[in-house]
This record gives sequence, structure tokens and C-alpha cells, in this order.
Amino acid sequence: MRAAIARAGTLVVDEVAEPEPGDGHALVAVRACGICGSDLHTLRHAHRMVDVAEATGMGGAFDPDADFVMGHEYVAEVLELGPATDGVAVRPGDLVVSIPFLIAGADLVPLGFSNDYPGAYAERMLLTAGACLPVPNGLDARRAALTEPMAVGLHAVNKSGIERGCAAAVVGCGPIGLAIVAWLGARGIEPIVASDLSRRRRALAVELGAHVVVDPRDEPVFEAWRRVDGMRSLVVYEAVGVPGVLDEVIFAAPSQARVLVAGVCMEPDTVRPLIAVVKEINLQFAFGYDPAEFADTLRAIAEGEIDVTPFLTGSVGLDGVAAAFDALADPEGHVKILVEPGTPPGVTPLGDTHPAR
Amino acid sequence: MRAAIARAGTLVVDEVAEPEPGDGHALVAVRACGICGSDLHTLRHAHRMVDVAEATGMGGAFDPDADFVMGHEYVAEVLELGPATDGVAVRPGDLVVSIPFLIAGADLVPLGFSNDYPGAYAERMLLTAGACLPVPNGLDARRAALTEPMAVGLHAVNKSGIERGCAAAVVGCGPIGLAIVAWLGARGIEPIVASDLSRRRRALAVELGAHVVVDPRDEPVFEAWRRVDGMRSLVVYEAVGVPGVLDEVIFAAPSQARVLVAGVCMEPDTVRPLIAVVKEINLQFAFGYDPAEFADTLRAIAEGEIDVTPFLTGSVGLDGVAAAFDALADPEGHVKILVEPGTPPGVTPLGDTHPAR
Repeated sequence: MRAAIARAGTLVVDEVAEPEPGDGHALVAVRACGICGSDLHTLRHAHRMVDVAEATGMGGAFDPDADFVMGHEYVAEVLELGPATDGVAVRPGDLVVSIPFLIAGADLVPLGFSNDYPGAYAERMLLTAGACLPVPNGLDARRAALTEPMAVGLHAVNKSGIERGCAAAVVGCGPIGLAIVAWLGARGIEPIVASDLSRRRRALAVELGAHVVVDPRDEPVFEAWRRVDGMRSLVVYEAVGVPGVLDEVIFAAPSQARVLVAGVCMEPDTVRPLIAVVKEINLQFAFGYDPAEFADTLRAIAEGEIDVTPFLTGSVGLDGVAAAFDALADPEGHVKILVEPGTPPGVTPLGDTHPAR
Repeated sequence: MRAAIARAGTLVVDEVAEPEPGDGHALVAVRACGICGSDLHTLRHAHRMVDVAEATGMGGAFDPDADFVMGHEYVAEVLELGPATDGVAVRPGDLVVSIPFLIAGADLVPLGFSNDYPGAYAERMLLTAGACLPVPNGLDARRAALTEPMAVGLHAVNKSGIERGCAAAVVGCGPIGLAIVAWLGARGIEPIVASDLSRRRRALAVELGAHVVVDPRDEPVFEAWRRVDGMRSLVVYEAVGVPGVLDEVIFAAPSQARVLVAGVCMEPDTVRPLIAVVKEINLQFAFGYDPAEFADTLRAIAEGEIDVTPFLTGSVGLDGVAAAFDALADPEGHVKILVEPGTPPGVTPLGDTHPAR
């Protein structure tokens, strides 16, 4: 079958071995898979990610110098169930999503970060049949593909401990910052003040529920919060993840602020602890989601509690993945590009073609 | 009157103006005042502290190039009440402690960090009469002088949110680390695993309630915790406050660890956010205490709930403050040296002379 393969820091489309379902596996046909910021990181910084995974005891064996197929924000159609799948909730023909881990014997394989099993930038892949959730309520595949990144946003909001009566400041409106805005809006948090350098992303933040958006070059996010509120207990969501931003947040946040760090800064970063001490800042670093949050995200999208339509800005076939990675470098361009195996090369804008809201 | 004055980065004993009580003030005679690590910092890094205070909007006007008298861990005897002190809870002859802030007209003066009002390295000083707490229960002055630093430890423990069933790791057994150990012990936390380079301080940690102490050169604190427990939810107390320690803690702590940062690192510090993200570390920076915690600390010492005797390792007169600052640089030497105005020069060990336990 065909796949977009990460090979020595580039993406090439080539033939890979057809996946063969083992015990507990479902063979699925990928219908769509979002391109994640961590895929962009991985292509550039795979060695650093592997080093951290090994240092923290949280990674498997993964050789970034050998070929691998990324893609973990997938929606897929079940083609065939492998051995030892009696009693699973899905059957051939079902549209499914799942948390991106494959149980393979005694191993837990992080799909999209493995040399042995392909991720979803491929025509077909293997999933853990027992972990597959049928897409409910007639939800279309494109919106269902947003389950995984939206679950990251839900986890960040849960982990932050925000409750009604608090205000929120969202620093950075990439896909994770926007997902956080959407969940905060669904929770009734007010005001939500968001900042981003990109005009397009600020407009999307408003569409998703932000009450105030600012270009930080014109008005820093904390000044905007002081202007429109300044009283409520403030929870800050750092969703940029480049060196220096954490220190800027610590420096400018109000005393007693809680800061949820959702941005994944790959470089060592310098902060001034004395300022954090004097203000009694709380930094909660967050990562991923749990299976219940993943399932709740699918339900909330399917029931219309959160609207992911604004995220859907582009679609490419396997031949277009490399071009899509480049296109995502421009924040005025796309938010989320879906890889839809089988569609023609080139990035197709989804503005007019995605399902009606 | 005589005072030990901070002047251009050194300590000199000289005459200063006799304090005159204004509205709401008590004139008191200092009986004892502990030397705090932040006094050592201030003598060396006063400009940096002033910069941070101004940048965060949390400081008053304080010129570290002009003379000032430090000392904020005091116990004192009331000599005279000034105007507008009707109804206060103290009277002349009372032994008192208080949170170290003087209300002077519209200003809130941090005692020990002011050019206008002396701190407690002086024969006499002014306190806010309405903030003075009479020392109860016949508690002696030396133990009462530990109220302020022990309140810092109580606040750190409260702010960490630790509950029964959690384990604790205390990194660094200076006065604040030891205060944290004492409060954790009083709360019934088990195990308390503590680390320090100094044999003497490790012994004191055991005396105050630590279950396991390690020299981090022999066994890192997290390895010791894994050896004796490794199961409970872990709360880490960082009480060292030098560059690099925070990153070491983040790197070696278990996933989901809560880290209470009580050490005051004066320098910019570098961390690896990616590791904190993958482990979902929580960093809570803590500073000071609130008035209720201060009062509760005095009560707990007076009622014998926590024993501060092990902290009392030395005493000096005003002429000995400079020597005491030098002596405190050796962690195998003293923990807390009290300045007792009127006693002769030289550091008097308190091992045999402090009140019987």
C-alpha cells in the first residue's frame, strides 16, 4: 500500500508493506488524518523527542533514522477484524476513531511514532479493536478526525482546574490554543481573552468563543484582561511553546495566577524563579488526555456541544503531505489540514467543501 | 540607639535615630531576632530584589545604597504604645511577635527592608500595635522568635496541598527545608524523605521528623523515595534555590509530581519544559505566609505541636551580626543564629544554653 513516509527528515510517498492484523487488531482504511504540530516537531527534532522519551522512561524503542509513518489524528473505516476480537464494539464498515496506541503482544505502540506499525498517513493501518469508538450520531469523518486534537484541549482545560467565575487568558491560537478556547467557551468561562500574532487565528478564536482577542504587538494579553476584567481569578493557557514565552507569562501575569502549559517547547528555556516566587505562580504542565476525555470529546463533537468546523481549513492526499507541512508554517494560512488518502495532490481549501454547519 | 546597619554591602554597628511611635505604633525592645537567608541574599543582591519588587509592582520605595537595618524574625517586649492604639490586644511589658509590616500613614513598610524604619537588628523598633500577638503559654523568647520562619514552612506545606496518604521529598535542609520537615511530621505525612549535603542538617531533619535522609551525592532523593515507597502520590519541596536544582527535580521526579518551590533562586534559571510536559509536572512557587498562618504557627509552637528547639544553634549581640552572617555560610555550623541585642560579641552556641526541651 502507499504511505507518506518520514525518511531522514523529509517526507516521501512510497510503497510500504500491507499491514496484517494480529491478535486484537482491526485492519482499517484511513479516511482522514489531521496533521499535528507534534508531527512537524518530530520531522525536525525526532532525536530530541526520543532522548526525552528514553530519559523519562516514557518511550518505546523508536529509531528516527529508520523509516516511519506518522499520523495519529485519524478517522478510519473498519475493513477486517483480526483474531481474538470477539466482543469488540465495532465491525467491518464502521467509521471509528481511537486513542493512538496499538497493543501488539506485550508492547504498547504509539501510533505515528513507530518503525514497525504505520500511522495514518497511509492507505491502511492497524488499530486496537477493543479501543475503537464507533463515530456516533451520523457525524461526518472530517469532524470526527478532530477528536484527538480537541481531546488535548479538553485535557488542558480539565488539568487547569478552571471553574466558573474564573477568567481565562489563552496565549497563542494555534490548533491547541483554539481547542482550549472552544472548550472554555463550552464551559461558560467569561471572559476568555486570547492573543495571537495572526489575524486569521484571532478571527477563528472569536468564532470559537473568545470574548476579546488581541495582537500582542498592540496590546499584551494581560493588559487586555485588566482592561475588560482584572478582578477574577485568572487561569492562563500557554499554547505557544517557544523559548521565552514562559518567562514572559510569569513576568506579566497577575499574582496567584495559575498557568497551564500546553505549548510544547522543545528547547531548554530560561525563567526568573524569583518573580514566580514573589507572585506565587502555579505552572501546571499538561500532555495528552486520558481515554475518558477522548471518548467525551467524540461525544461532544457528535452532539454539537463544540463546533470544530472552523478548524477544517484544508485537505490533501498522500502526495500532498509534504506540501501541507510547508503550508502549515504560515499561521495566516491553515489551521488543520486533513490527509485524505486517495484525494489528488495539492492542498484543497475546505472553506466551501466541508460539510455544512 | 545602636543597630547593625546594612551599609554598601557590609554590616556595621552604629548609632541610629531613636524610633518615635506614630499613630497605631508600639515602641518595642527587641529581645531576639533570627537571621534569615533572605537577609544574606539582600546584603549581596539588594539591587536585584529591588528590581524584581518594582517590576512586579510589589515593592515600596527602598534604596539599597542608603543605610537600612534588617531583621524581620523578631520577638520583642512592648515598651510604650503610641497614639491611636486604643483597644489593641497588647500592653507595655508584653512579649510579642508580629508579621513584619509597619503601617505608617498610608504606607505599608516591610520591616527589615526600609530606609525609614529600622528592622530588628537594633535595640528598639516600631511595630503595628494592632498586629502584635502576645506570646502565649509562657513560651520563651528564643522559641517565639522562630514563629516567622516556621510560618514560611507552614505556608509552603499548605500551598502544596499535600494530604495524608501522600509521600514527601524535601530537597535541601536549610532553615526552610527543616521547617517544612517539621510541619510535614506534625501532619503525619509518611514517608518524609529529605536530602542535604550537610551531615548536621540531615541529623536535624531526622530530629524534626524525616523518616529517611540522604546525601544526594550517595543516593538521589527520588531514588531513596523509590526504595522506601515509590507508590504514593509524591509532593516535592524544593528548598535549595540555586540555579539548576529546579531542572534536576523536573528531570528526576516521577510523573504527575507536584513540586512546591520554596527555595528562592535569585538568578535566571534554565529548565527543559519538554520533560515537565511529558511528566505533567506541577510547579507551585510559594512565598511568605498569611496572617492566619503566622498566628497558627505561634500557637503550634506554644502548645508544643512542633518543636523548634533543634533550630536554635547560636546567639550573638549586635556586634556579632557580621560574624554570624559569615558563620551561616557553613551548613555544618549553624541553622538559626538569633541576634540578641545586648549580649556580648561572638557567636554563643545554644546547644547547652537554650531552654530545656
